[in-house]
Amino acid sequence: MKMIKYPNGKVVLTKQHSPEKKQRSSASKQGIDFAKRGMSLEQELNLANQYYLARGLAVIHKKPTPINIVHVHYPKRSAAVIKEAYFQTPSTTDYNGVYQGAYLDFEAKETRLKTAFPLTNFHNHQIQHMEHVITQAGICFVIVRFTSLERTFVLDAKVVIDFWQNQKKDGRKSIPLNCFETKGFEVKASGYPTLDYLPTIHKIYFS
Amino acid sequence: MKMIKYPNGKVVLTKQHSPEKKQRSSASKQGIDFAKRGMSLEQELNLANQYYLARGLAVIHKKPTPINIVHVHYPKRSAAVIKEAYFQTPSTTDYNGVYQGAYLDFEAKETRLKTAFPLTNFHNHQIQHMEHVITQAGICFVIVRFTSLERTFVLDAKVVIDFWQNQKKDGRKSIPLNCFETKGFEVKASGYPTLDYLPTIHKIYFS
Repeated sequence: MKMIKYPNGKVVLTKQHSPEKKQRSSASKQGIDFAKRGMSLEQELNLANQYYLARGLAVIHKKPTPINIVHVHYPKRSAAVIKEAYFQTPSTTDYNGVYQGAYLDFEAKETRLKTAFPLTNFHNHQIQHMEHVITQAGICFVIVRFTSLERTFVLDAKVVIDFWQNQKKDGRKSIPLNCFETKGFEVKASGYPTLDYLPTIHKIYFS
Repeated sequence: MKMIKYPNGKVVLTKQHSPEKKQRSSASKQGIDFAKRGMSLEQELNLANQYYLARGLAVIHKKPTPINIVHVHYPKRSAAVIKEAYFQTPSTTDYNGVYQGAYLDFEAKETRLKTAFPLTNFHNHQIQHMEHVITQAGICFVIVRFTSLERTFVLDAKVVIDFWQNQKKDGRKSIPLNCFETKGFEVKASGYPTLDYLPTIHKIYFS
């Protein structure tokens, strides 16, 4: 992980920032631009996970973004303030949890493209993590939304890993929509939660 | 979650800080002072988890500390710098992962006390999370180290939850060492990894 220190302690206060990465934040904005419902994939997944938790259906959480903290200030009588920190590359996928005793693990991504999902959306570490989870008999998949098409798919991680490993051989740098349609499972928009993906997971892995 | 903004953007650079909470960081220091091996429980767990991952025995990661990011600066040609952020109270336990298809979930804590482990080491949210995991048939426990005694125990989360729920009734605000000895399982120090806790988990939950 790269890290640049600012020993002069100079601060340039920029725009307000949500607790997400720059990259992901802009992806969410793209989702808001293109999806009629106005919610990003992440927001819909958070709502669904809250719903599953409240109903006792599953315990699935998004992992916090890993941060490398360099300087913290501890003012008297108020909360500690992190004054210098850097984003780290995650070594795992973003979501994991438990459903009926089984370990679930997944990554969620959006794309504005209409015909394929670029593999550059994944890190090498994330692919390795998916391989590790599969080796341990965990359930591992990706949830990909084509925002322009308003279509969301669950695709088993093994398919993603195959594409990842073959890209050096066949030069294909993306997973075609067609592959999601044939090997994946589409999650249709529903009432509440708006992205009720757990029944799809149950159908694929538990029946 | 409390949050105090500093609109003047003033920075008081304090000591170098590891990517851990103040509380946990000082707990680690206590570990270094009192444990002969010189490693904190967290360091030993990280080593063990790395070992399990490399050997294909289990996939267990510590979750990043949740941070609420308020201001990020994006300098040209270098990494984004978080300039204002605050620690959040975790809504889950710190560790989770998969072992032979099963979901594992645990919290790890150290105490310098010699006869009991104070319940104040847990948050209400963490106890609730343990209850949720058990409802979903996940494997949930705590790993507690009595640093002064150099003894480390695995204790099933159900026992912890019982103590938590009874503290209002019986006024007992800690779990006695005796309870760890009778209802828990001691993890003896070993060669490498130094805290080889997975065989203990296997013995309790898989045999």
